[in-house]
Amino acid sequence: MSRKLKVGVVGAGAMGTSHVATLAAGVPSAQVTRVFDMDTARAKSVAEAVGGGASDSAEALIADPEVDAIVIASPDFTHADLAVAAIAAGKHVLCEKPLAVTAEDARRVVDAEVAAGRQFVQVGFNRRFDPGFVDLKGSIVDGSLGDVRLLHGIHRNASNTTSTDDATLVTGSMIHEFDTFRWLLDDEVVGIRVESPISEGFRDPQIATLWMAAGQMITAEVYCNAAYGYDVRVEVVGSGGSASLEPRTPVVRRIAGQGSSSIGSDFVAHFIESYRLELAAWADASLAGDVVGATAWDGYVANLVAASGVAALHSGAREAVDVPECPGLYT
Amino acid sequence: MSRKLKVGVVGAGAMGTSHVATLAAGVPSAQVTRVFDMDTARAKSVAEAVGGGASDSAEALIADPEVDAIVIASPDFTHADLAVAAIAAGKHVLCEKPLAVTAEDARRVVDAEVAAGRQFVQVGFNRRFDPGFVDLKGSIVDGSLGDVRLLHGIHRNASNTTSTDDATLVTGSMIHEFDTFRWLLDDEVVGIRVESPISEGFRDPQIATLWMAAGQMITAEVYCNAAYGYDVRVEVVGSGGSASLEPRTPVVRRIAGQGSSSIGSDFVAHFIESYRLELAAWADASLAGDVVGATAWDGYVANLVAASGVAALHSGAREAVDVPECPGLYT
Amino acid sequence: MSRKLKVGVVGAGAMGTSHVATLAAGVPSAQVTRVFDMDTARAKSVAEAVGGGASDSAEALIADPEVDAIVIASPDFTHADLAVAAIAAGKHVLCEKPLAVTAEDARRVVDAEVAAGRQFVQVGFNRRFDPGFVDLKGSIVDGSLGDVRLLHGIHRNASNTTSTDDATLVTGSMIHEFDTFRWLLDDEVVGIRVESPISEGFRDPQIATLWMAAGQMITAEVYCNAAYGYDVRVEVVGSGGSASLEPRTPVVRRIAGQGSSSIGSDFVAHFIESYRLELAAWADASLAGDVVGATAWDGYVANLVAASGVAALHSGAREAVDVPECPGLYT
Amino acid sequence: MSRKLKVGVVGAGAMGTSHVATLAAGVPSAQVTRVFDMDTARAKSVAEAVGGGASDSAEALIADPEVDAIVIASPDFTHADLAVAAIAAGKHVLCEKPLAVTAEDARRVVDAEVAAGRQFVQVGFNRRFDPGFVDLKGSIVDGSLGDVRLLHGIHRNASNTTSTDDATLVTGSMIHEFDTFRWLLDDEVVGIRVESPISEGFRDPQIATLWMAAGQMITAEVYCNAAYGYDVRVEVVGSGGSASLEPRTPVVRRIAGQGSSSIGSDFVAHFIESYRLELAAWADASLAGDVVGATAWDGYVANLVAASGVAALHSGAREAVDVPECPGLYT
Repeated sequence: MSRKLKVGVVGAGAMGTSHVATLAAGVPSAQVTRVFDMDTARAKSVAEAVGGGASDSAEALIADPEVDAIVIASPDFTHADLAVAAIAAGKHVLCEKPLAVTAEDARRVVDAEVAAGRQFVQVGFNRRFDPGFVDLKGSIVDGSLGDVRLLHGIHRNASNTTSTDDATLVTGSMIHEFDTFRWLLDDEVVGIRVESPISEGFRDPQIATLWMAAGQMITAEVYCNAAYGYDVRVEVVGSGGSASLEPRTPVVRRIAGQGSSSIGSDFVAHFIESYRLELAAWADASLAGDVVGATAWDGYVANLVAASGVAALHSGAREAVDVPECPGLYT
Repeated sequence: MSRKLKVGVVGAGAMGTSHVATLAAGVPSAQVTRVFDMDTARAKSVAEAVGGGASDSAEALIADPEVDAIVIASPDFTHADLAVAAIAAGKHVLCEKPLAVTAEDARRVVDAEVAAGRQFVQVGFNRRFDPGFVDLKGSIVDGSLGDVRLLHGIHRNASNTTSTDDATLVTGSMIHEFDTFRWLLDDEVVGIRVESPISEGFRDPQIATLWMAAGQMITAEVYCNAAYGYDVRVEVVGSGGSASLEPRTPVVRRIAGQGSSSIGSDFVAHFIESYRLELAAWADASLAGDVVGATAWDGYVANLVAASGVAALHSGAREAVDVPECPGLYT
Repeated sequence: MSRKLKVGVVGAGAMGTSHVATLAAGVPSAQVTRVFDMDTARAKSVAEAVGGGASDSAEALIADPEVDAIVIASPDFTHADLAVAAIAAGKHVLCEKPLAVTAEDARRVVDAEVAAGRQFVQVGFNRRFDPGFVDLKGSIVDGSLGDVRLLHGIHRNASNTTSTDDATLVTGSMIHEFDTFRWLLDDEVVGIRVESPISEGFRDPQIATLWMAAGQMITAEVYCNAAYGYDVRVEVVGSGGSASLEPRTPVVRRIAGQGSSSIGSDFVAHFIESYRLELAAWADASLAGDVVGATAWDGYVANLVAASGVAALHSGAREAVDVPECPGLYT
Repeated sequence: MSRKLKVGVVGAGAMGTSHVATLAAGVPSAQVTRVFDMDTARAKSVAEAVGGGASDSAEALIADPEVDAIVIASPDFTHADLAVAAIAAGKHVLCEKPLAVTAEDARRVVDAEVAAGRQFVQVGFNRRFDPGFVDLKGSIVDGSLGDVRLLHGIHRNASNTTSTDDATLVTGSMIHEFDTFRWLLDDEVVGIRVESPISEGFRDPQIATLWMAAGQMITAEVYCNAAYGYDVRVEVVGSGGSASLEPRTPVVRRIAGQGSSSIGSDFVAHFIESYRLELAAWADASLAGDVVGATAWDGYVANLVAASGVAALHSGAREAVDVPECPGLYT
């Protein structure tokens, strides 16, 4: 039998609990051995349901010999320190997005890897593992769209669950788009503008305009209180055609004058297969000593774009995104 | 038998010829009696096919007692003068969009109507008569979307047939969007920005951002060389839901691993039913001495927005749209 | 100005009234001059709304010199006699489907044309003029589906408005399918079976199986009380692929967890453009002394298939459809 | 750590190999320890890739103490004997469909379970675990369709890979539909007719008509050489509305006048998630000593329906399906 990756999970909130369940039910190459959460009872309950145990602290979990690799699903502000500690312990990490709250913090993770001389961290930009997004990227890479000119992104939640103000909508939600666009186009964002039709209070929805190094423009709507459901779409427009990601549930009901498909409100359910594929790829790569998916560098650059996005939200103007030279470790 | 509107058509290019054919085949309350075109032979041929005759000049056509009302489908730069002349002759007009090349010229048409003390001019913003657009507007008006926050428009042609430079893409193509947004939201544009991923030469595609008086933001892509076909879509996003106009031909072919619907490249064919409904509404209203659809004022304001759009295209900044007080004639 | 076809309409029920309105609003080459209905006041009202007058009887209408051609939209049992009378008067006819209640009656119309030595009658199988059906037929004719093996038809009404028993569901509703299949495949039905999951009372829905002379099999569901709306679909399946007619309204609303398109319940509204195209084609052909669309022979053969269908409904077995030799007039 | 189900897989063809890979990559509660195939080298290669070993014979595999439970994915004619042997060994089984080639053979499996006094066998009718099918069933169970009247099924393969003659198309492919319909409606088939537009040689496509005990009628098309791709659809029609399973890939490409979604040709890829869910449910149930999904009884009844289907294919008539009384073990 193949060796299994013994996984410690920090954070047993919605995302952490989902990851524990997904690992247990769908990732044979991993086994959750430890869970830590500030809510000790919850950690114990989540861990024991899958045959693991609770740790007394994140530090203890990271140091535990029964833990080969760590999933970080605790509050955002703890991500960078935990990632740095895991790197210090020489253990692989799957860190939920964002890698850090600030670009400076994210940079510390990059620097720790550079100092260690190898990568340990995958950032949880799960869309890179979603079959629909992978197919969409395929239509760019295979050249069937010609030269890409534009992207249009839509990211709507039924109701706001995570953002506490305008800025965290950028750093916590829109950051998914930043990574998506960089990954789809294999290029860097060089400028960003963020605006909203709402001028006071919590400015939601927001419309971002992004410019890529190769010249493409991107519009991205993020709307945390879109009411009707969770909806993520992207259209890529090129000189030879367009490709759109337009998910639809497979059942159409025709009742009382309406033909309809259901739209869920739960982003975890919407992307559940991508989370499983992400965790499986992470476990396999970790066992092999590799990192796949979004790297710490990708996480750091997403934070850089987000920082410029927050500045743009406040200034109302286009802000530059200055990405430093990429360390050789990531190229 | 009901009285018929005797119609003179100025311009026998693609649009004018289509209007003549549509009037003859689909609008019983109108009869094309005269056609004028610089190409005299073409005018004669187009007119005689429907039982009419050619005029020697646009002036002669306007003055002809066999002409009750005039369709202006000649080159854009002639629209305003012809409309003013028709008003002077006391005859109803359906003027193809744009009403004029410049807002100043369009204003002369408005002023002529104000001086005459009544309206004569309908501007050919045909989408106002398209069943899909009417249904989309219904979802706003009936409140089912809650408070509208955003609109997203897409307007793509397979290949550029009309725009000669960046500015005419705004004044000739994007002007459809300007009227569409004003009409859908029953509100005025107060600001506009126009940008492009293409920095030199003919900047196509273009992305416009618009702000409405009530605060909504709008993104609009216009792409004249989108290659794959003619595609016009609009999504309206509100606090209670979204409504999208997403036309699809009714036949799905499943061949060789692809399930596909055809996308035409001809905008006249795409909107042919809207043109017929527009012409029929115009003929009936003209017989009754009324004006329906987009007025000269609407045409003028669209030109104002376009002028700010061109300024924005050059400045790269948001430009204000200052709409003067609306004359009582139009309220 | 072109000559206009002066049209007399027999029957001012829902279908007749719709035809009068469509002719007046959308068919310039025709003019409704006379209307007859048993409800004299209604006939007068419908006729005068479009500048015509009421006739005292169907016979008077047919004989009226102000009537060049006749639309028959009276109850089904009157169709054949009226068509024969119109033929005797040498006037063109658009006869609503079915051409007759029985094949014997329909044959009388054919015989009258054969005796007259020319055709006068178009039967109102409007789908032949529907752009979607025309496109579907195109995918057969152009060979892109390879050899056609199967067709599947669906024909649902929100609620039953016309059928009074099992048999009239076949002769009044399913007869549309019979003509559609013959026209799509340009071939004759040679066998039919009609069954229902409902064993007593009004047997609705019904499922017909048809065999064509060239060997294809067809399944057709007709459901008059399908509750949710009016829905007509056809899929053609060949050795090289499939083509489906799947109409969808162009607006998608996303509200409260459902993405939906509306489905109407009114078949006249659903097919309104096909009715206009049918009437326009009929008017133009009549002015030219021609017949287009479904002929009296087509109407007769549809009745023959329906007769076998009713027999099959009662026998529960496959019944043959024996189509006599087609008179030279129709080949 | 939870106990894992040690699985032996008999048959390393396409289906068996896929199951081994799915178990290894997506079912943590199972571990493939043994593989047997007539092609010994292949068995070894497939087994070792996941940390298992090859067995010398199916009998040895069944008897092996390192095997807790058995996946039967060998040729159809071996299924029943292997299932009986596994029951004799007291080991759980996931037997690929069909449970047997003949109903008599399938009955032997049922009898073996009845004699043993408990169930061991799940039959691989994977659609019962497909999220789309589960959602479709939900729309029946929740009453939103009213009283179900009709089902329409379509089952197309790009090219025939398994059926060797008309009869095996029924017993090998259409048998999926038989289980689907029984499961969706929770009812028995009482009659079946199978016909084809092809009268000689390999009769493909075939159209089956089925009658359920509660009166519903079902049409089912099975077409093994549909050329364009793998396509499985079902529509359920009730007195209150309709629900259709209409899978569509999430990416729409718009190129050269066509808006298209890809249609795969590989049924394993199409249903890969259902296979994973099926195997996971089977592993969990086996560990708990339970059987979920389709039972040996369901497999036997599917064979009974198939036997009547083959008889109907030959007779051209409706054949009864006589389901014996269900043993108490399964109720």
